Amino acid sequence: MVNKMTVDEQALAQRLMNYRREFHRYPESAWCEFFTTSRIAGVLQSQGYELFFSDAIIARNTIMGRDDANVIKAQERAISWGAELDHLAQMNGITGVGALLDTGRPGPVIALRFDIDAVDVMESQDDSHRPRFLGFASLAPGVAHACGHDAHAAIGLGIAESLAANKNTLCGKIKLLFQPAEEGCRAGKAIAESGWLDDVDYFIAAHIGMNVPSGTLVCDPQHFLCSSKFDLHFKGKPAHAGIEPNAGRNALAAACTAVSQMLAIPRHRDGMTRVNVGQLHAGDGRNVIPANAVLMGETRGENRELNSYMYQQVEQIAQAAAMMHGVKVDIKAQGEAIGLHNDQEMVELLGRLGPYSGFAKVVREKDFGASEDASYLVDRVQGNGGKAIYCLVGSDLTAGHHNGDFDIDESRMLPAVKLFLNAIEHLQGETIHKEEEVA
Amino acid sequence: MVNKMTVDEQALAQRLMNYRREFHRYPESAWCEFFTTSRIAGVLQSQGYELFFSDAIIARNTIMGRDDANVIKAQERAISWGAELDHLAQMNGITGVGALLDTGRPGPVIALRFDIDAVDVMESQDDSHRPRFLGFASLAPGVAHACGHDAHAAIGLGIAESLAANKNTLCGKIKLLFQPAEEGCRAGKAIAESGWLDDVDYFIAAHIGMNVPSGTLVCDPQHFLCSSKFDLHFKGKPAHAGIEPNAGRNALAAACTAVSQMLAIPRHRDGMTRVNVGQLHAGDGRNVIPANAVLMGETRGENRELNSYMYQQVEQIAQAAAMMHGVKVDIKAQGEAIGLHNDQEMVELLGRLGPYSGFAKVVREKDFGASEDASYLVDRVQGNGGKAIYCLVGSDLTAGHHNGDFDIDESRMLPAVKLFLNAIEHLQGETIHKEEEVA
Amino acid sequence: MVNKMTVDEQALAQRLMNYRREFHRYPESAWCEFFTTSRIAGVLQSQGYELFFSDAIIARNTIMGRDDANVIKAQERAISWGAELDHLAQMNGITGVGALLDTGRPGPVIALRFDIDAVDVMESQDDSHRPRFLGFASLAPGVAHACGHDAHAAIGLGIAESLAANKNTLCGKIKLLFQPAEEGCRAGKAIAESGWLDDVDYFIAAHIGMNVPSGTLVCDPQHFLCSSKFDLHFKGKPAHAGIEPNAGRNALAAACTAVSQMLAIPRHRDGMTRVNVGQLHAGDGRNVIPANAVLMGETRGENRELNSYMYQQVEQIAQAAAMMHGVKVDIKAQGEAIGLHNDQEMVELLGRLGPYSGFAKVVREKDFGASEDASYLVDRVQGNGGKAIYCLVGSDLTAGHHNGDFDIDESRMLPAVKLFLNAIEHLQGETIHKEEEVA
Amino acid sequence: MVNKMTVDEQALAQRLMNYRREFHRYPESAWCEFFTTSRIAGVLQSQGYELFFSDAIIARNTIMGRDDANVIKAQERAISWGAELDHLAQMNGITGVGALLDTGRPGPVIALRFDIDAVDVMESQDDSHRPRFLGFASLAPGVAHACGHDAHAAIGLGIAESLAANKNTLCGKIKLLFQPAEEGCRAGKAIAESGWLDDVDYFIAAHIGMNVPSGTLVCDPQHFLCSSKFDLHFKGKPAHAGIEPNAGRNALAAACTAVSQMLAIPRHRDGMTRVNVGQLHAGDGRNVIPANAVLMGETRGENRELNSYMYQQVEQIAQAAAMMHGVKVDIKAQGEAIGLHNDQEMVELLGRLGPYSGFAKVVREKDFGASEDASYLVDRVQGNGGKAIYCLVGSDLTAGHHNGDFDIDESRMLPAVKLFLNAIEHLQGETIHKEEEVA
Repeated sequence: MVNKMTVDEQALAQRLMNYRREFHRYPESAWCEFFTTSRIAGVLQSQGYELFFSDAIIARNTIMGRDDANVIKAQERAISWGAELDHLAQMNGITGVGALLDTGRPGPVIALRFDIDAVDVMESQDDSHRPRFLGFASLAPGVAHACGHDAHAAIGLGIAESLAANKNTLCGKIKLLFQPAEEGCRAGKAIAESGWLDDVDYFIAAHIGMNVPSGTLVCDPQHFLCSSKFDLHFKGKPAHAGIEPNAGRNALAAACTAVSQMLAIPRHRDGMTRVNVGQLHAGDGRNVIPANAVLMGETRGENRELNSYMYQQVEQIAQAAAMMHGVKVDIKAQGEAIGLHNDQEMVELLGRLGPYSGFAKVVREKDFGASEDASYLVDRVQGNGGKAIYCLVGSDLTAGHHNGDFDIDESRMLPAVKLFLNAIEHLQGETIHKEEEVA
Repeated sequence: MVNKMTVDEQALAQRLMNYRREFHRYPESAWCEFFTTSRIAGVLQSQGYELFFSDAIIARNTIMGRDDANVIKAQERAISWGAELDHLAQMNGITGVGALLDTGRPGPVIALRFDIDAVDVMESQDDSHRPRFLGFASLAPGVAHACGHDAHAAIGLGIAESLAANKNTLCGKIKLLFQPAEEGCRAGKAIAESGWLDDVDYFIAAHIGMNVPSGTLVCDPQHFLCSSKFDLHFKGKPAHAGIEPNAGRNALAAACTAVSQMLAIPRHRDGMTRVNVGQLHAGDGRNVIPANAVLMGETRGENRELNSYMYQQVEQIAQAAAMMHGVKVDIKAQGEAIGLHNDQEMVELLGRLGPYSGFAKVVREKDFGASEDASYLVDRVQGNGGKAIYCLVGSDLTAGHHNGDFDIDESRMLPAVKLFLNAIEHLQGETIHKEEEVA
Repeated sequence: MVNKMTVDEQALAQRLMNYRREFHRYPESAWCEFFTTSRIAGVLQSQGYELFFSDAIIARNTIMGRDDANVIKAQERAISWGAELDHLAQMNGITGVGALLDTGRPGPVIALRFDIDAVDVMESQDDSHRPRFLGFASLAPGVAHACGHDAHAAIGLGIAESLAANKNTLCGKIKLLFQPAEEGCRAGKAIAESGWLDDVDYFIAAHIGMNVPSGTLVCDPQHFLCSSKFDLHFKGKPAHAGIEPNAGRNALAAACTAVSQMLAIPRHRDGMTRVNVGQLHAGDGRNVIPANAVLMGETRGENRELNSYMYQQVEQIAQAAAMMHGVKVDIKAQGEAIGLHNDQEMVELLGRLGPYSGFAKVVREKDFGASEDASYLVDRVQGNGGKAIYCLVGSDLTAGHHNGDFDIDESRMLPAVKLFLNAIEHLQGETIHKEEEVA
Repeated sequence: MVNKMTVDEQALAQRLMNYRREFHRYPESAWCEFFTTSRIAGVLQSQGYELFFSDAIIARNTIMGRDDANVIKAQERAISWGAELDHLAQMNGITGVGALLDTGRPGPVIALRFDIDAVDVMESQDDSHRPRFLGFASLAPGVAHACGHDAHAAIGLGIAESLAANKNTLCGKIKLLFQPAEEGCRAGKAIAESGWLDDVDYFIAAHIGMNVPSGTLVCDPQHFLCSSKFDLHFKGKPAHAGIEPNAGRNALAAACTAVSQMLAIPRHRDGMTRVNVGQLHAGDGRNVIPANAVLMGETRGENRELNSYMYQQVEQIAQAAAMMHGVKVDIKAQGEAIGLHNDQEMVELLGRLGPYSGFAKVVREKDFGASEDASYLVDRVQGNGGKAIYCLVGSDLTAGHHNGDFDIDESRMLPAVKLFLNAIEHLQGETIHKEEEVA
């Protein structure tokens, strides 16, 4: 570390790897991160952080895409994996944890955010898959850390430990947010609306990988897509398909009509739009007019207006498809992301710090081309006058994100930790410096 | 019993009820009836029947709608329920059992058929549901005897026991077929093609319920629909729906196109046709172009030509939908039923015997309006010069077939047993009589 | 002729041929039969009939499928062909004519109905097409008597002349209805509702051809389909398809969605149903989002309930397709036919008279399988206590009805005339007889 | 005029208006410009230009979107309007004319292009529509100069006269191309492939209006879309929709399927794409399964690859829709445009000349957002080493292009003429200057 904080880099790198591999073995989907949260909370507690759970960090009524049945099963599994009952009680069904380091000295409020959920994907069973042959493969069939959030959580703990160890050199307050349910952009809005970040002066977040090679830092990714995730539930009426087909109300037919038409929403003059139906499940018996259908979809747009245009079309199509087939439809919001625009002084700061933090190359702009619910957090901080940045930490990958063969270059976690720590130092330095100037 | 055989009706009625309730507790879907088969085989064995399993009664290469994964799980469950390993070994993965009673005396070969599979339906959890409050509800969540085949199996065992007890009064051979996989019309064709019924002179089958009230016998149901059951497997290519939607090949879109178009197959001049897609499952992640889709469908027609017309259209639409979206499609036959036409002398015989067997009312014709794979067995027997009948044994029902609230009037099993036994007596009598005449 | 009326059959056959060929040269589509009506009215007038036009025979407010622009052009053409202005004035824009022969003697009211409109089909230009090489081909491109209504009109005039010549032998009243706009079932309902047939005791109508060979009479055709004809007008909003596709409201897309879904209306348990979209016209420029679309469709059903089921589905689909694409839709009824059931005493009467009228063979039942708006007239007469019949007069055809190569066997018009005259004689005889009995 | 050429601007403005209004009265659609071509040829001839017709300027085998039947009617009408038979003979069915002014002096070859076709749109009948109340409204119902090509032709003639009058001050060769069939991008490719422009050093073209206000010159419009225009002809089999719906092959249903699916072609990662079906016409009779359908469509893309992607999808969908419904489909190319990129030295030259030519304001870039088949000509010239420019001449409009109320600000033709003349002077000057330098 370049300045005041001291860290044993070799030991830290080892701990980061251990943490990451542990999280990798125990992957938990969005809103199911009970073991992960408990494990993180345990470490943070031991380092003296004040912890915040549940309603303290998440506005419960704006939660999206959380399924009670899954959550209950996840809690049971978490207990079997060793989650602490005390932590579970504090979570009260809502995963994720916030940690506060209050130095007691005047200074800025700096927040760092790490997302911790895994993906619903079957991890590769191939013997050449590193987590497999090194023995830290997923213990939960069908769930895997195939997006790198295991590394994010590890980086967060690495930073937490480093900060705690150097508490005396710090000023102001530092908030560490271990966020659940980033996949599907489900938690961001609810965390923003909880107000826990409303006093933050500086906000920093990062994602590992993202088609950025090992050694490169991208400090101002562009084109975060606004996105809405939604489920459509069609409810019709069953009937024997041979005996009285006219008596049914075909929810599957309505869903298929909706899918075909949603894919045909007209392109928009003002820019890029997207729509996808990722899943459709419908029907009971082969010879029964299907009385129910559920489809999972998403819209995207280059900006908020474009995404709204798409989503309104989806709503119109869903209603019309239901009417056409005499069925009912419910549209349930499941997630939402908005645009994300870094503050340029943060971009410049991290750009300058990159080479001192272990990055061989710093690139300013790169197309992000996807959605991130950190966007809600950034928007909230900026709305309250704070400055924010979301950057990309390069890592060579063995396969694309969300692919069962995905694996990261673990050696790229240390530079991320150093970058965050350096940024904290400089942000505190600048502030102090400014105060001195003022004096 | 009217003639030579003697039966304690009260004791028989009690045994029928016990058998039926036992089968009801242990429901097994098509091709999964390992416990059921083992239980039946055990009784038959104890009664001295010669048993036939697996390839002896089923032409393995024409089996439809059997899923290896399900079968393996079903075998494990059957063992846990008490199925005998010896029986499982003889089944060699193929459920169902044939039993032969050879009297050693000259006489006709008479075959009776009882289907034994349950339905994939969740049994009612309602406290007023009789199997529930009497304690014989399904032990397999999502599977239930909601079609009455538990009663069919019980009737078969009741007949088997009665015949064995009266063996000395009988002549010729009697074959009892405990058929698997009637639901979806999956086994009929394969059993027919095994040749096990090729020496049969008389074939009798019945279904309980079917909207016929308790006390009524329908001896010549009409309009059995020809039907083809099929699965379509669409295989495309995944891609991130936000980043490169053009790189995907959308199997879900292809399936939806196929569904919409299949429902629009033109009506046919020559009579009634049907098409249904009962289930559709597609896709992996919300933000991934769905690379796979499976749909389960069926066609029907008043006659073989009309069903062929429908099925050929389905094939054409499936291929074209795949081509349209650049995906691949496999069409897998899952079941098949053909028309069923009773022999009028059998109709008249059972009509005459009805009142002597406990039926208050005999109705000749009634629309069947559905499909039955006994049609293949009837067709096979008739093709070899035998006579066949399929009749309906009335029973008041608590809900329609395949409904979770379905329950039968158990007192209607006894008349069915008596009808079959009486028919056997008369058929043996007539034959003997004829032989005497010839002599 | 068998009884009281005398007719020179050879001369009559020649006049029938002349009339038929004249009508064939001047074909006029539904609601455009101004020349045809005028020509018929001229003959009837000269024979001493009292004539009824326009509102006297047609309830103007229930007219369907009449287009003002076509009517105006048709009047101009009719004048150029020699229609009398006096007749046009009396028609007041509504074609068709009723004629009354009041004998002044007591007796029944007998009505005969002849439809006179041509079809919108291009007549064959082939030199082997008889109307062409004999010089009586259609003078109106795109319109042709390809359904045989030219023969119907000729038969009507032949009967009119025969009746007038034998007026002294007749009793009661005879009404001859030369009906416009049978194609598309557009006029029947409006004529029925005018009340002109409300005093009718016996009603007779016939169609030539209909897959019945020359020499055969079918006196009780079965399965007249109920039918509704309709136009859907979709109205959207144009936009440049390259510059701002999102600004359009795509009427063509809505129409296509409606078509696909209408063809997929579920089959009905209770019997035969049909739906067709015969035409679709949409859009203006290749690069403009199409702002308008018109489609012409029809539903049918074995009975009134089945047709209603289909039509209600069409309405629902049309509204939903419009909603789906943000456009407006108007549904305009264009024609309607209902079921038709002959009175059995009329069936028996004509069956008996067939052999005496020149028919070599009389068949009782045959599937009609199409729709006829005589059904409204029959229904009205029967509703008022009258008896009615609609029969089929066999004629070998050169091609199917509505085909450009269609031509009839002209020699089959005479038997039709004789059948109608014989029927009149017998119906009058029976009535007189009955009155005598009463006396 | 700034330099050597002298022009009486007031008289020229008057002549431009007269020409424009004359062309406006006699609008002719693409490939039908026989009168227009003859009128232009007459003027050019009188000014001493050498003329080139038909195969000399257009590669006949690559012509797109030309309909023989329309062409024949258009020739007849052109004759009735006063087209010269001699010109018609030279055109030999292919409209448009090239004119060559060969000064005999060394110098560059400069080509100017003016498109002359009208649009298939009904001109406003509103009394406030200027062409109407000033008496120069379209004489051809349904065809109108609603895109400003009447002004383009007038500008071309104004330039032709000015050049001829100043021939002595000029050097090199000047080619004036009066292009047919720009609408739908039908002629550009065929003209390019004729080779008539292969010796051109400088190529200049312009469009009036295009949302640029009067007084403004846009000298480097951006984002010309690549586009393919196509017709799909579906051919099925008719059948009576009531009697035997299964016997038909529904071309309308195939077309509707194709439309729905074409609108759903996935968006592309690499940029903007478009697809539109502008027209659909299908079917014959209401009660006949429609045996034919024609649809007119277009694809667009930001670049050639994107347009190819769209067009290939259209082809695949068309084939699959035909297969799905058992019909045949023909895909007929009707027009094509590619990207257009100005040479920057031409952009700078015209930018400098704008203020001297009567433009109050010069704007460099503006989104074009549409397609132009001048793109093929520019591409050809650039491919042979020449320099090319396509610019926009501002004009306040009364309504958008292709709208029936469209009218231009006629005073903006004179600046266009002056700009072209100034450009010619400078291009000749520069060249001479360069040659002097070389010397």
